[in-house]
Amino acid sequence: MAKPVFITFVAGSVGEWRVDRVTTLCGDPLPPAPRIAMVEGDGPGEAAWRLRGVTSNRRYTYRAEDDSLAVRQAGLGRPAARHAALIPIRKTEAWWALAQDERRAVFEEESHHIAVGLDYLPAVARRLMHSREMGEPFDFLTWFEFAPQDEPAFDHMLVRMRAAKEWDFVDREIDIRLSRA
Amino acid sequence: MAKPVFITFVAGSVGEWRVDRVTTLCGDPLPPAPRIAMVEGDGPGEAAWRLRGVTSNRRYTYRAEDDSLAVRQAGLGRPAARHAALIPIRKTEAWWALAQDERRAVFEEESHHIAVGLDYLPAVARRLMHSREMGEPFDFLTWFEFAPQDEPAFDHMLVRMRAAKEWDFVDREIDIRLSRA
Repeated sequence: MAKPVFITFVAGSVGEWRVDRVTTLCGDPLPPAPRIAMVEGDGPGEAAWRLRGVTSNRRYTYRAEDDSLAVRQAGLGRPAARHAALIPIRKTEAWWALAQDERRAVFEEESHHIAVGLDYLPAVARRLMHSREMGEPFDFLTWFEFAPQDEPAFDHMLVRMRAAKEWDFVDREIDIRLSRA
Repeated sequence: MAKPVFITFVAGSVGEWRVDRVTTLCGDPLPPAPRIAMVEGDGPGEAAWRLRGVTSNRRYTYRAEDDSLAVRQAGLGRPAARHAALIPIRKTEAWWALAQDERRAVFEEESHHIAVGLDYLPAVARRLMHSREMGEPFDFLTWFEFAPQDEPAFDHMLVRMRAAKEWDFVDREIDIRLSRA
């Protein structure tokens, strides 16, 4: 497991990723912005908004699951992966009041979060950033990259994730779709 | 589980806690300082050193263990608890490369971290702060408060903890003992 990496999403008039559409699924929306940059560190300049997160060790995956993910997952930055999604998520106080075994049971045994995600590898590349311990408005920033022809599959993955028990504990979620030339 | 709280330990010439002795168990030492303050947020002024951490949800405890802790644990700030220990800890890359089930197994089934800690409640009050995702030199800051007559019991707890498998994964540890009037 590599060292934690600090990432800032900077929304404004510049940035590699063009914002194609934004859907606020629950909770407060974010101000609109035409472009988003994903940068290491804080990122320079003015912004419509910034969201910060940090990569970390996985909190729920068991060894066999980690190994399955390692074999099948793709990295970020593939040339064909010209579409992306930034989905910031906040979970409820009820989620954070659960013990580790209770959170794991909801996450995987009830909601099959890891198993569902595996169905979409390697088409969908993924990076999870933690924000809860940074005083940020969201608990997690999830980032996905995929080829345009794989976007229907990605949408199908989200339908399955959002129908699961785990999503009863989500109280703010914004789905930001992006593309690059 | 309450919101994360940001804590800074500020070492210098002021602060509620007098440094009585410092033992560097492994890894680099910290510069000497006569006093330490534990403050919420960053804390003002010059310092010999600062260590920052943030409280968070527990990562390993199961529901039954959480409930046992909740019944027996004492809060910080008891008037009789005039002695304290600040023990910053860093774990190895090998620890962070373990999957969740492997870390849990080392932590509790092999090392009995929770069970050993329970033996010293309510005499020893405890606060755990996470630092790894803050770019800090340690992964955790552990803080303990106890009455002077309970310090031998606290020392015994540390002997048991440090003899366990979990401590094979500790590569920097400093034990700072403190007292207040």
